[in-house]
Amino acid sequence: MVKKLIGIDVGGTSVKFAVVSTKGEIEEKWSIKTNISDAGSHIVGDIAYSLNEKLAELKLSKSDITGIGMGTPGSINYTDGTVVNAFNLNWTTVQPISKSLQALTGLPVFLDNDANVAALGEAWKGAGGGEPDVVFVTLGTGVGGGVIANNRIVRGVAGAGGEIGHVTVARENGFACTCGKSGCLETIASATGVMHVARHKAPTSKANSKLRDDVLLNNRVSAKDVFDAAKGYDPFAEEVVAYVSSALGFALSHIGNILNPACIVIGGGVSAAGDILLDPVRDEFEKNVFSTVKHSTKISLATLGNDAGMIGAASLVLTEV
Amino acid sequence: MVKKLIGIDVGGTSVKFAVVSTKGEIEEKWSIKTNISDAGSHIVGDIAYSLNEKLAELKLSKSDITGIGMGTPGSINYTDGTVVNAFNLNWTTVQPISKSLQALTGLPVFLDNDANVAALGEAWKGAGGGEPDVVFVTLGTGVGGGVIANNRIVRGVAGAGGEIGHVTVARENGFACTCGKSGCLETIASATGVMHVARHKAPTSKANSKLRDDVLLNNRVSAKDVFDAAKGYDPFAEEVVAYVSSALGFALSHIGNILNPACIVIGGGVSAAGDILLDPVRDEFEKNVFSTVKHSTKISLATLGNDAGMIGAASLVLTEV
Repeated sequence: MVKKLIGIDVGGTSVKFAVVSTKGEIEEKWSIKTNISDAGSHIVGDIAYSLNEKLAELKLSKSDITGIGMGTPGSINYTDGTVVNAFNLNWTTVQPISKSLQALTGLPVFLDNDANVAALGEAWKGAGGGEPDVVFVTLGTGVGGGVIANNRIVRGVAGAGGEIGHVTVARENGFACTCGKSGCLETIASATGVMHVARHKAPTSKANSKLRDDVLLNNRVSAKDVFDAAKGYDPFAEEVVAYVSSALGFALSHIGNILNPACIVIGGGVSAAGDILLDPVRDEFEKNVFSTVKHSTKISLATLGNDAGMIGAASLVLTEV
Repeated sequence: MVKKLIGIDVGGTSVKFAVVSTKGEIEEKWSIKTNISDAGSHIVGDIAYSLNEKLAELKLSKSDITGIGMGTPGSINYTDGTVVNAFNLNWTTVQPISKSLQALTGLPVFLDNDANVAALGEAWKGAGGGEPDVVFVTLGTGVGGGVIANNRIVRGVAGAGGEIGHVTVARENGFACTCGKSGCLETIASATGVMHVARHKAPTSKANSKLRDDVLLNNRVSAKDVFDAAKGYDPFAEEVVAYVSSALGFALSHIGNILNPACIVIGGGVSAAGDILLDPVRDEFEKNVFSTVKHSTKISLATLGNDAGMIGAASLVLTEV
């Protein structure tokens, strides 16, 4: 029998599991709630219990599985298989995850950062179409990313490879970022960023706009409100989207010129806006990349949604074995 | 006997050869003039002749050599081992370089772009100190670059990985670039770029400066003139250097945030300016990178000079075998 892979995506709310074929197909998936109480000390035990139970149910023995790949938030030490600073799991001290999970399951465990494994997933089975050079940018509460070059994650010397959210886009008068800098892409193109841009532009905009009136009245607006209004041709929403997409397209142009990936995949909640965001992003990208890059690097929406992490995590087993 | 490598760096003026140990030490080096006449049709023959002669002189037989690595200008097809658009060699049509040289020497040949092999050389034995993640940026007539991630060249989907010279730095009112865009790093931080900046700033600068007077009178100034004057505290030269280094440091910050390499190595003629260029480059870099990157990615001057290409070319044999 061809062996199978286990992919696990650990998040603050749930832990997602999949049995994945060596071709990257999900054969079975399930999830459990993440129990972050007692400094996250139950998480690994819960994972092992659920996995062992499911394998028994599926009549799979340990010898049918090559290994477990797992994506978690936080800072990973790849050599030791440890995680630290995963605040939404309450893992604030160094956690020997690989060792513990290996002991509880009898299977080899490979660990990586959640953004990196999502990038691997999209590169392998999603919008990246199996290309060796793919960059994944996720526009959520923050802006994260993962860089795949020559089929491998680029972690960088201190694990900060893919910190695309902190590329400076607004060199002058940028918004303050949680990272301590200002003008970071994340302050503009994340869900929070879109809201900031709308609030900042509302008082001085000349647009005759219901959205602008709402923002001025309530000082509240979501990224979704902005994109929905832009789809209805609200002129203020169009201003905000133009600013956000120009910033994003410009930052992506740096990725294009430095790496010339086959594909830059855009995921995360904000990417649900679709073409109203992506079309102007592509325009700004094309204006700022070398001509070879313009003709060879695509910008695409992510296609795997929540499955990206599990599939990418599973692929760690293949790359690392 | 431990086998040796051959590294060849093909340029428009000369072809440089080295016998290199598997540890990256140059054991013998020599060069020949590049004969670009007759559409560059003599180059491969001349290389084979010189190499075969030297190996005989050194009493090395073919079985003592693992292979030949070669860096050339132009666009490389890595699968076919062909080169095209190497205009300074007069190779304007597709040239089957690997096949021809292999036939004439009896040794396997591995080909890459000259900027990429110089990056490999500096990463392996130069300022990169053998780190797996190193980016090389060369400030010459133009601005070129090579990206090494996980010990491998990042060529990108169409070979345009490392086109760092075409990262847009001046988003508004930038100088026109030979690539068709404007505001590219190359238009500011190359030797020609520094000259452009000086000429552009001279008419409006308020600085009381001999250099400025010279520029206004003769409309001529070299990058070296500018850096020499800045070392003598010429206020106009300081203005020009501040602008150039700010642009360069800003572009390098994108590399830092995207890749977090151990080292960004700066080479090429302009880098001879040394710390007067590098200190403000580092300041701007640090202002614009994520804090982990600030504390882990170094910016260093290249150390191998003209040997980088030969050593890096030789290393191709080790990676590709």
